[in-house]
Amino acid sequence: RINSDRLWETLHETCKWGAAHRYGKGPTETGMARLTLTDEDAHVRRWLAAEVTKLGCSLSIDQMGNMFARQSGKLKSSAPMIAMGSHLDTQPRGGRYDGILGVMAALEVLRTMKENGFQTIHDIGLVNWTNEEGARFPRSMCSSGVWAGVIPIESAWNLHDIHDSSTTLRSELEKHGFLGSMACSSNAANGTLLGAHFELHIEQGPILQDSNRSIGVVKGAQGYRWLTFRVLGRDAHTGTTPLSARQDPLLAASRMIISSHEIAKRYDALASTGVLKLPSNASTNTVASEVTFTLDIRHPQDSVVQFVQEECLKSFSAIASQDGRGVAFDWTLDTDSPAVQFDKNCISSIEAAADALVGPDKRMSMTSGAGHDSVYTNKHCPTAMIFVPCRDGVSHNPTEYCSPEDWYVFLAMYG
Amino acid sequence: RINSDRLWETLHETCKWGAAHRYGKGPTETGMARLTLTDEDAHVRRWLAAEVTKLGCSLSIDQMGNMFARQSGKLKSSAPMIAMGSHLDTQPRGGRYDGILGVMAALEVLRTMKENGFQTIHDIGLVNWTNEEGARFPRSMCSSGVWAGVIPIESAWNLHDIHDSSTTLRSELEKHGFLGSMACSSNAANGTLLGAHFELHIEQGPILQDSNRSIGVVKGAQGYRWLTFRVLGRDAHTGTTPLSARQDPLLAASRMIISSHEIAKRYDALASTGVLKLPSNASTNTVASEVTFTLDIRHPQDSVVQFVQEECLKSFSAIASQDGRGVAFDWTLDTDSPAVQFDKNCISSIEAAADALVGPDKRMSMTSGAGHDSVYTNKHCPTAMIFVPCRDGVSHNPTEYCSPEDWYVFLAMYG
Ligand SMILES: NC(=O)NCCC(=O)O
Ligand SMILES: NC(=O)NCCC(=O)O
Repeated sequence: RINSDRLWETLHETCKWGAAHRYGKGPTETGMARLTLTDEDAHVRRWLAAEVTKLGCSLSIDQMGNMFARQSGKLKSSAPMIAMGSHLDTQPRGGRYDGILGVMAALEVLRTMKENGFQTIHDIGLVNWTNEEGARFPRSMCSSGVWAGVIPIESAWNLHDIHDSSTTLRSELEKHGFLGSMACSSNAANGTLLGAHFELHIEQGPILQDSNRSIGVVKGAQGYRWLTFRVLGRDAHTGTTPLSARQDPLLAASRMIISSHEIAKRYDALASTGVLKLPSNASTNTVASEVTFTLDIRHPQDSVVQFVQEECLKSFSAIASQDGRGVAFDWTLDTDSPAVQFDKNCISSIEAAADALVGPDKRMSMTSGAGHDSVYTNKHCPTAMIFVPCRDGVSHNPTEYCSPEDWYVFLAMYG
Repeated sequence: RINSDRLWETLHETCKWGAAHRYGKGPTETGMARLTLTDEDAHVRRWLAAEVTKLGCSLSIDQMGNMFARQSGKLKSSAPMIAMGSHLDTQPRGGRYDGILGVMAALEVLRTMKENGFQTIHDIGLVNWTNEEGARFPRSMCSSGVWAGVIPIESAWNLHDIHDSSTTLRSELEKHGFLGSMACSSNAANGTLLGAHFELHIEQGPILQDSNRSIGVVKGAQGYRWLTFRVLGRDAHTGTTPLSARQDPLLAASRMIISSHEIAKRYDALASTGVLKLPSNASTNTVASEVTFTLDIRHPQDSVVQFVQEECLKSFSAIASQDGRGVAFDWTLDTDSPAVQFDKNCISSIEAAADALVGPDKRMSMTSGAGHDSVYTNKHCPTAMIFVPCRDGVSHNPTEYCSPEDWYVFLAMYG
């Protein structure tokens, strides 16, 4: 039986590193801004290293700063460990549960085992994956991606802080002492092979709550692509330039955002613009010369993601010549994360445990809307995820909340 | 006869203070970023002070930093001077002619008079109005507005640098030594009464060029209003939050921008969004919590400006509940500049001079699309403006260009 109170206390205690965006008076009523490899992130990492060491785990850190804590099993074999992994970094306006809960729950499992003198047969352990969010260094699931061989380490190391082009992910790893010596690889010879990867995570959406279920058995994750569009027009005086003579990139970008929304709606997909930027010298009475915006397209089928992207590009081309003298635009594909199916055996074992704990009516099978490190581990070891409800489906938001009643259930399972 | 070459040389020579945004190889092929009361603006102001003093003008500076250079006429009366005024500050991505040409042309007139020993009957002079653009301290025609009694001096002094909230217009006046002792007022007792105000300016639009005219006799200026809208939603994960559960302020703002455009088009008015801002911690996979954008509405009739504003507000209310769970919004009115009619006598004298110089076929009567300091001087002294074409109607743009052939004509008139 895991200790739900201790988990609650530990999680919130460690949220002092990065607490931000207070929304209520209570001690835990803040969000988080613990961007990867900042001082706050380094604090919680050093704390985690000390905790797992206290439990007798061996800790290794790879060249992406991924932290692997390993507890020996009875067999004392060199077989790869079974991992419980997630991430401790957050969005700039994130909450206290996204990623953090998974790592803290894994730690609670290790603590409970230790306390009760319980030893698994095979080695078991915990992983803290670096830069899952991609909010500071713009590549999500960054270091599980390197581990899985999908992202070349050089390109991950060279990611620049989005607000400070002189800082790279590698320079921050070095600065904080988390540039480990072990290769970041799922390859046994020089890296870290995993026997399985289980990830506990808040759903980050409203489906469990709306269906009144307490456990989501995640059968896979939807595909998604991130694109960045640059729309080019011409600075012009807003008072003297007839609409017909303008090349207005913000007007065009507005039409593009709405069009992508309508297209996604038609295909039951998602299309979202999270970032839109004008030049910093924009001015009320000047039509801006240039607008940049992101587009995040998602659907459980890759072919639909592809189709929505194509429809958007077609529509954007038409929009580019719709108003005044038209605008130009170009785009880049920044992230392409195809849909994945998790491992059937891992899924079945989660289902069986959930049935025993809460009964079949309280669990449901679902597809993850978000990407997770498990998407990448799934390429090299049997993987599945356990979702737990979060209040009103709110995530990537300071008010994100997950009730300890809900943890209790799946934590029992997790062990 | 004014010296067009000297004017060209002086204007471009003084553009070394603030030159920016190079677009070609030629020495004058840059735009300008001479924001009001920056070091660059202070340089050109000190230079102007020295030049008018050399010409024997008396120089007075008021509490808004407006510079009045006065050349005595034959009568040596204390009657108010006839002023040629405009501004030396620019947009952050502005050109070399907007405002600057009017001040430099006035200087050239004073130089030509001096050279030829020509003395007017009444006193004549030059005015450099502070912060016409409102690009740094967000209030356009700011100091002519204070002079005219429309803007309270305290509120103008308290304007904050849009990028640095610790800097006010008053603190910059003090820093650069341009906080004069004279009251900023059109009132004779303690301020600066003007006998008339003539302003030479580039049209900033394409009408003169398209109609093949070389002089625009400006009969007035259209009305305009600047509003700022704040749209409030909720941070949400782009991958896990169904469209129906979102409160997406950027989607709503996009619809608002397009709607304002369509409404303006229907009423032959202008509606433009020059600035749109998301929180600095916006992220590709998070729906932003808040969006702020400006709206600039213009039409020669105030009633139409009012009507477009009302239609926009109605439409925005409908948009606010259109998608997902809806958004909230609020707004402020930042600038309200009603339409003006310039002085009939001033207009006639410009017409007569234009007819003599270029003939009636080469001049046309027009309404200014932009606000100008003349809009405010018109409240307290007979005022009119002379427009000259600018290439392709491009202004508030580094590539703004006005051909010396066109200056030649109206400068002869100006004297
Ligand atoms: N779980 C999570 O927020 N991952 C970030 C990648 C994504 O946007 O899906
Ligand atoms: N001439 C000019 O650009 N004035 C600024 C105020 C306006 O936007 O009309």
